[in-house]
Parts: sequence; C-alpha cells; structure tokens
Amino acid sequence: MFESLVLCDCNARKKSVFQDVHVMIFIGFGFLMTFLKRYGFSSVGLNLLLAAFALQWGLLVQGLWHLDEGKIKVSIFKMINADFSTATVLISFGAVLGKTSPVQLLIMTLLEITIFGINEHLVAEVLKANDVGASMIIHAFGAYFGLAVARMLYRPALGNGHENDGSVYHSDLFAMIGTVFLWMFWPSFNSAIAEPGADQLMAVTNTYFSLAACVLSAYAVSSLVEHKGKLDMVHIQNATLAGGVAVGTCADMNIGPFGAMIIGFVAGIVSTLGFKFLTPILASNLGIQDTCGVHNLHGMPGILGGIAGIVAVALGKKDGSAIMQAAALASSLGFALVGGAMTGLIMKLPFWGQPPDQNCFDDSIYWEVPEEEEGEESLAHGDHSMNKAEA
Amino acid sequence: MFESLVLCDCNARKKSVFQDVHVMIFIGFGFLMTFLKRYGFSSVGLNLLLAAFALQWGLLVQGLWHLDEGKIKVSIFKMINADFSTATVLISFGAVLGKTSPVQLLIMTLLEITIFGINEHLVAEVLKANDVGASMIIHAFGAYFGLAVARMLYRPALGNGHENDGSVYHSDLFAMIGTVFLWMFWPSFNSAIAEPGADQLMAVTNTYFSLAACVLSAYAVSSLVEHKGKLDMVHIQNATLAGGVAVGTCADMNIGPFGAMIIGFVAGIVSTLGFKFLTPILASNLGIQDTCGVHNLHGMPGILGGIAGIVAVALGKKDGSAIMQAAALASSLGFALVGGAMTGLIMKLPFWGQPPDQNCFDDSIYWEVPEEEEGEESLAHGDHSMNKAEA
Amino acid sequence: MFESLVLCDCNARKKSVFQDVHVMIFIGFGFLMTFLKRYGFSSVGLNLLLAAFALQWGLLVQGLWHLDEGKIKVSIFKMINADFSTATVLISFGAVLGKTSPVQLLIMTLLEITIFGINEHLVAEVLKANDVGASMIIHAFGAYFGLAVARMLYRPALGNGHENDGSVYHSDLFAMIGTVFLWMFWPSFNSAIAEPGADQLMAVTNTYFSLAACVLSAYAVSSLVEHKGKLDMVHIQNATLAGGVAVGTCADMNIGPFGAMIIGFVAGIVSTLGFKFLTPILASNLGIQDTCGVHNLHGMPGILGGIAGIVAVALGKKDGSAIMQAAALASSLGFALVGGAMTGLIMKLPFWGQPPDQNCFDDSIYWEVPEEEEGEESLAHGDHSMNKAEA
Repeated sequence: MFESLVLCDCNARKKSVFQDVHVMIFIGFGFLMTFLKRYGFSSVGLNLLLAAFALQWGLLVQGLWHLDEGKIKVSIFKMINADFSTATVLISFGAVLGKTSPVQLLIMTLLEITIFGINEHLVAEVLKANDVGASMIIHAFGAYFGLAVARMLYRPALGNGHENDGSVYHSDLFAMIGTVFLWMFWPSFNSAIAEPGADQLMAVTNTYFSLAACVLSAYAVSSLVEHKGKLDMVHIQNATLAGGVAVGTCADMNIGPFGAMIIGFVAGIVSTLGFKFLTPILASNLGIQDTCGVHNLHGMPGILGGIAGIVAVALGKKDGSAIMQAAALASSLGFALVGGAMTGLIMKLPFWGQPPDQNCFDDSIYWEVPEEEEGEESLAHGDHSMNKAEA
Repeated sequence: MFESLVLCDCNARKKSVFQDVHVMIFIGFGFLMTFLKRYGFSSVGLNLLLAAFALQWGLLVQGLWHLDEGKIKVSIFKMINADFSTATVLISFGAVLGKTSPVQLLIMTLLEITIFGINEHLVAEVLKANDVGASMIIHAFGAYFGLAVARMLYRPALGNGHENDGSVYHSDLFAMIGTVFLWMFWPSFNSAIAEPGADQLMAVTNTYFSLAACVLSAYAVSSLVEHKGKLDMVHIQNATLAGGVAVGTCADMNIGPFGAMIIGFVAGIVSTLGFKFLTPILASNLGIQDTCGVHNLHGMPGILGGIAGIVAVALGKKDGSAIMQAAALASSLGFALVGGAMTGLIMKLPFWGQPPDQNCFDDSIYWEVPEEEEGEESLAHGDHSMNKAEA
Repeated sequence: MFESLVLCDCNARKKSVFQDVHVMIFIGFGFLMTFLKRYGFSSVGLNLLLAAFALQWGLLVQGLWHLDEGKIKVSIFKMINADFSTATVLISFGAVLGKTSPVQLLIMTLLEITIFGINEHLVAEVLKANDVGASMIIHAFGAYFGLAVARMLYRPALGNGHENDGSVYHSDLFAMIGTVFLWMFWPSFNSAIAEPGADQLMAVTNTYFSLAACVLSAYAVSSLVEHKGKLDMVHIQNATLAGGVAVGTCADMNIGPFGAMIIGFVAGIVSTLGFKFLTPILASNLGIQDTCGVHNLHGMPGILGGIAGIVAVALGKKDGSAIMQAAALASSLGFALVGGAMTGLIMKLPFWGQPPDQNCFDDSIYWEVPEEEEGEESLAHGDHSMNKAEA
C-alpha cells in the first residue's frame, strides 16, 4: 500500500528545493542546538534520530489523509511535506532540550506529527488559509506545542540555572554552522510549496530580503541591550533567523521588497528583546523553561507572520479572507497549546526514563562520552601531583 | 587529447547531482574521519589531497577506456564517475587511517583507481550487472581493498591500542558534520547515474527510505549492546549510513518503500553489531586493524547490497541475470582482495616514509600543529608551579 | 521603486547556482576566517552582518545603475551580482581581520561596494573586457582594496606578533569547513554569470581542473618549504583555492583542461610561496599587516588570472581585445588601491571605536564570551589548590 510513484510531479527544481530543506532539517536544526557545552551529541544525534523517525511517520500520516486508490503514493512533494512536519517536532525539541529522554522525545514526535496533520488539514483544506512558508502551521505551532510540553515538565530545581545550561567557545561555533545553513536555505523553505513560477520566485526574494533586514536589526538590538554594547551569541544564533519565520505566511504575496524588509526588521527586534527580557520572565513567573528560546525564534515571529498575513490578505495582496487567516492562526495556537499540554502530561508518566535534575543538559547519561581532552587528562595528573604536594 | 566537450549531455539536474556527490566526497568523507582526537588535520586535509589527485587520475583512466576519436572528452557524467572512483579510495583510506604516510596513500590511490577501472569495466560492460548505487563496485570493493592493505601493513605493537586512537568531545562533533552530509546527500549518490526519469526518482526515494529505517535500527542496536543502554558515537556516526550502502545495487529497482526499509533496517543492525563485536575480533585474531571500521559501514553492507541485488533480479524487479549479479559481486571482492594485498605489499616497501608506531594517529608528524589551547598553556604554567610546590 | 520581478529570467539552474554562491559567501568566507583562536565569533558573526548589509547595499547600488522605468527590479541574476559585490568586501575584511571595529567594517562595506560598482561598470560596459569568474574585478580588487586599508591602519605595536594572532587545533578545523565549501562550489562561482550552455559548462570544468591541479602544487610546495617536510595548515586552507581565483577570467574561454590545470598549478605555487616568504616582508618592510594573507589567495592569483586573460584573448581563445583586458586589470588595481587608501583614511578617524592593540584578535571586546571550558575551570580550581599548596 506504500508505493513510490514519482512521475512528472518531480523535476530538477523540486528535487533541489527538497535537498535544501533537508539540509535545514538535519544540519540546520541539528547544529543550531549544539550550543550547549555538554549536550552536543544529543543535539545533533537525537535530532537525526527524531527527524528520521518523524519523516517516516509524517509520510504515513499524510498518506493516510490522501489515500490514492487505497495506496500511499510517495512523491518529492510529499517528502518536502514530511520534512515540514519534522520541522515542527524539532522546534518543540528545542524547548525541552536537555530535559527529556529519547523515549519521551519519540512519544512527543508520534503525537505532535499527528496533531500537526489535523491542524494542517484544517488550515489548508477547510479554512483555505494562505501559509506558504508556514509561519503559523509550523513555527507558531511547533513553538507553542513545545512550550506547553515544557510547562508540563516544569522542574523547579532548575530555577537557579544549571551548571551545564550554557555554552563554551567552540560549542557556540558549532551552533553557528546550524544558524548559517538555516539562514542561507530559508528562501527554499518558504518557497518549497509555492506555485511554480512567479509566486515561487517571489517567495524566494521576499524571504531573502526579510532575512537580510532581520540580521541588521538583530545585531543592532543585541548591541543596544547588552552590557557595554557587546553582542550576545544567543541573539546572533537565533534572532537573525526570525525574519525567515515572520515572512513565511506572506512569502508568496506581492508585499514588495520593502514590505518584506519591514517584516524582517521587526522580527529581529522582537526576537532579540524576547531573548533578553521575556525568556527569564517565562521561566521564573510562568514555569516555562525554554532551553533554546524557541518562543523568541519561532513563537512570536510565527504569530507576527500570521498577523502580517491577515493584514496582507485584507489589503488584497493575495486572494483569500482575512477572517480565515485569523482563524488559521487561532487554530494553530489552539491545537499547539492543547495538544502540547496533553502530550506533556503523557510524557510526564514516570516510566519513560526522564533524566533527574542533576543530569540535565548532559550527554553522559545517554551517550558513551570520550575521555576528556589532553589538557584535562594532564590536569588530572596535575591534580594528583597537587594532592601529593598537599600531602 | 584531453578536451572538455559538455553539450546537451549536461543539464541542471546532472549538475545538481554532481554537486551533491562532490559535497559527499570532500565534506562527507573528510569530516567523517575527523573523529580522532589528534588526526583531524590529516583526515580532512589528506582527504582533500587524495580526492583532488584521484579525480584527475580517475578521469584519465576512465578516458583512456573510452577514447573518442583519440581524445578524452570531459562531461558532467564523467566527473560524477571520477568522484565515484575517488570514493573507493577514500573508503580504503578509512581502513588505514592514521597508520600511513601521504606518499603511501598517493601510491594506493594510483593503484586502486586503476584496479577499480578494470573491475568496473568488467561488471558494467562484460557482465552487464546492475549496480546503480555501487554497493558492490564502490563500497564492497573499497572496503575489502582497504582491509587487504591494512592486513599487509599489520602493526603488532598497536594490538593493545594507542593513546591517540580515540576521540575527544569536539572531534566527535566534527565527525558528525561528515555523517549528516553523507546521510542527506546519499539519495543523490545512489541516483546519480540512474536513467533520468522514473528510475532516477525511484533511486532517490528507495535510498531515502532505506536510510531512514537504518537510523532507527542503528540507534536501537547501539543502545541494546552498550553498557546501561547508552548510545555509542562510533555507531551513530557510521551505522546510520549503512542503509545507503546496502540499498545501492537495488536503488533503481521496483522494490517498494517497504523493501527499501527492510534493507536499511537490516543494514543498520549488521553494521552496529559489526562495530561492537567483529572489529575487535578482526584486529586481534586476523591482524586487520580497521581504524574507521569500514568493514562495518562499507564492507558488510556492500555485500548485503550485492545479495539484495541478486535476489531482486531473481524476483524480476529489474532486467538482468541473477548469476551475472553474483559474478559481479565475486569479481568486486576478488579484485579488491587481490588488488589490495598487492597494493599493500608495494606500500610496505621501506622508502615511503611510513610513520613509526608511536607516531600513529598523530598529525604532528606530517603537519605543523599549533601550540596547545590556552587551558593547556596555563596548565603547563600550573605544572611548573606544582613542581615548585613539590620542591 | 524597489520591486521584485522575477519571471522567465530565473530558472532552476540559476537558482541552484545562486544557492551555491550563497553558501560560499556565508559558510565559505565565514568559516575560512575562524582559524584565529579567539576570533571565531567575530569571523563568522561579522561575516554574516557584513554580508547581509552588503547584499542589500549592493542590490541598491546596482539597481541605481540599471533603473528600469524608474524602478529597481530584482532578479536571481541581480542577487548573484549582489553576492559578488559582497565577496569583494569579505576579501578585504580578511586583510584587516581582528584589527577593526564593526562600525569601521560597515563603513568599509558602504564605500567599497560603491567603488566596486564604478569599476565593474567601467570594466564590463566601457572596456567590455572578459572577466566571467571575476579574477580582476572581485579578487584582485578586493585584495588590494583591503591591503590599502590595512596599510592605512598600520599598527607598529603588532610588529612583533600578538599572542592571539594564531590558531588552535580546533579553530583550524573550523577553518577547513570554509575552505572545503569554497573549493567545492567554486565552479558555480566562476560559471554563475557565464552564457548558459557550452560557455557555462566550460567555466565549470575549467575551474574544476584548475582547482584540482592547484591542490597538488599547494601541498607539494607547502611540504617543500616547511621544516622537515611538514604541511602548514595556513597554506592548505588558502593556497588550495588559488586555482579558482586564477582561472576566473579565462574560465569560459576554450583554454582546454591542460590550460586550466597549468593556471591552477602555477597559482598554487605562487600562493604558497607568498604565504611563506612575501607576507612577512609586506608586514615588516611595507607596514601591510595582512591577517588572512588575502594577497596570496586573492591578490597575486587575481593578477595572474588577469594576465592569463590577456594572453588567452591575445591567442584568440575568446572575442575581445588584449589591450582592453590589460586596461581592465589596471583599472581594477587602480580603483582598489586609491579607493582602499581613501577608505582606510576615513576608517582611521578616531570615533569609530577601533580596538586598542592589546585587544586585537579578541572576540571579548565586542562579544559576550562564555566562561572557559571545563578543563580550564577545574584548572582555576587546580591553581587555587596549588596556591594553597604553595602557601
């Protein structure tokens, strides 16, 4: 019943776009999360595991919605959509990074992809809303789903921070590999399912302009809010991408380069301010511990994108109904929050091997981690000598 | 006589596939081997040197087989084939990584590409066997060629391991760059020389499914065989790719997604078990010291792919003869083992600058290596103080 | 007035080439400069900032040159050209890496892109010279512009070196990510604006051959000039790319694979020798402190490419005038030196926040840098114990 029939539906352009999106999923998301000093194996390794599982499950769920003579037919288009549903899971993964076991994450994948499928069907088929770059159905959905899960898995003991919840110099550089690949290929993401031709090319250029403007505002605001005008790597790694998220819904609309740049510019500001001021408040007041700050990169920019879509449709930039756009945004947020909360409750059941507080953000609970670097080995030796010296 | 004539033979699709394969050769293989703590410069640097040399030599050898009016004509298709012959060398490089000099490796390149050319001609032109993704003629050939060389260069003194034959935390992350790029672009590798159209697209989707299933089995088995259910980075870096190798021969056959997934699933199991149980036995009992475990990633999955091809052809999934498929597998293994053994003997001659045992797996014998990291510099200072303290 | 109209002008091939060039700009240049031990955040981070700013400014400058009914129309072709003008800035960035503030660099970007636009217009429209891969108008121009700026910003106190002006083991590996991506995608760079069809494919294959030959000569010469025949990572990271620069002007000319290989081979020799012998002389005798050695990677190979273009046109390999080719080279060098010197003077004004000598090559002046690695943390602890021991 699961048959691969890929005929004229697939061409060089589609394959090339698929490949770009694939790089975003596996390199982009995977390395973006390697910023933690002791959680790099899990970031890139569990990203690979979850994505490989999610794309199979996503193809199956999607295929069951669209059975063709009782068979699931596979095409490049469906493979792109499977990568899209995978993106949702990886965004939510960012919210709970370091605080969940692989089994918990596989359960989250199973449930989130299913709920994503329902919401996507509703938004695209019932409401017939525009969301070509998926600001609402992927970014806002994935972020609020993850935040709801994080709320359910709240750990009071981490309120004062955790020694491993931070970066080291080279882990921040690994994360920049993820950032830059996401940044470069985002135009392909936002144009992947656009109508071939002028619409698709508009999606490419709008995303390109939004991202370029977003970099400028993210750097400017990071420098403004930090001590002595310094830049903060967390902002650069994440907020520079918010323009890609926020322009998603409008990407194939005729908003013009300046329209796209305004959206990106605002997204960069909102995202950076969120990291600086909102994330600590969410953690201390609402019990939402958002490891990667997905609320700032995907949540708020996703809502911004949804609102921009409502405005753009109201202004006649694309056929559609502003009310349906608003309903699509509400639906995405509703399914995310309710679905995420329910999923979080299931993940909280005591037999999934959730790591204890002191082992959070630490690969060594799930991975064989190599002996420390030479410097530290000799250090151990040094400590030994020191003990002798002290003795 | 060496003329570049690239006319309608080349189109966007071919160029795009070539580019993907190129990334696998230079980033994929290069970084996959950076897992060793003190051999990263050589891994990615010698990979670049060998590949740049191999693709020129490969074009020349291939061109001499297919002279056109006394001239060697260059096309994107031939550039893809040159990258393929290069892959063979890089696989063998993995078996002897850390134990050979650059000159020895250049000699290996020269001989292996030549022998590869003979076997490829035999398999494709004489036996007319199917091997679109080259499970047999690249992966099995490259692996057993490298293992035969490794046997010839056996070093008893390394029997108890070597202090540099291991990873550190960040070297394992560098290696994951290689793994993920190989994983993402493998569908292009297996479909690169398939018939354009339906066959090519089938090769893409079959490889995609095989790889996805392989990730799941590799993670599962790694967790099952390791202490306390932990994952081992060596397995994740390598065994997750075995599905791409094993589905190679069948990639353009109508085996269906489930057929592809079964092949990938089995490959992930075989490969992980090989790393855990077989590699130590090969080293201690047969004198085959396989640094990267190419036997597990390319050798056994390559044979599995060859056998799957025999079965699939016997079941009529593709025109051809199961006997010829079997002959192609035997030919690839035979040329690899005999050619590798002869090449290993030549490489063993005493004037190629083979590194002494104590300098194995160490960049500093062939590279200017920078001073140690700050931590270690201050450490040196610390040691000094300690000596004072002790004195 | 800034309108995106991308119709038939854009096709799969153009988008794919654009994407490759984009990777070179953001990953290639960005990571190539991460070789410095304490300047990785700035290398990849400021690269992103400057490039995002430069491509917007480049599109605007370019658009004002080519107004269409009073509007700036955006196409993939213009986006490729914007990336090209960005490359110029990033090359100059390499010359002053570690010694300039972000504000100084933004001013340099503003001025350099403008001057680049004038020279490009002169070379392409007035002189009608060939420079498809931009050896002259990008590489030579960017390098000599940057060297002129570096001369203006000469810092006598750095004459004896700086403790942070060097690499550590892993920073050299990060830099290799940049090198390899540049190397792999250079054929797309040199063919991006070639005539579609045979010319474009010739540009691909010529660049491919030049780069392959260049790797061999760079390794050979590096080993010849270094102590005990060792390889130097600086040479490998940079000189292996000189073949791509040098073949640029001739890339779409019928120079044949051997012609391309000779150009690449010579470029690899010249570049490596430059790093070994010329860079120290420029610094000590001429007051030109060229951090990344752009003179060796882009400057001399760019001139070599210009000369090769003159010879090739004189030999009738392409329509054109050898005199105009020479004039184009002279124009590029003249605009670069004069423009760079003027830009350097402006950058020298005392209110742009130029870092003091002791903070050069150090991220911590512009970035929040994470606490040191665990090894060093425990070290601090170790030092503490030692003090106790000593006390």
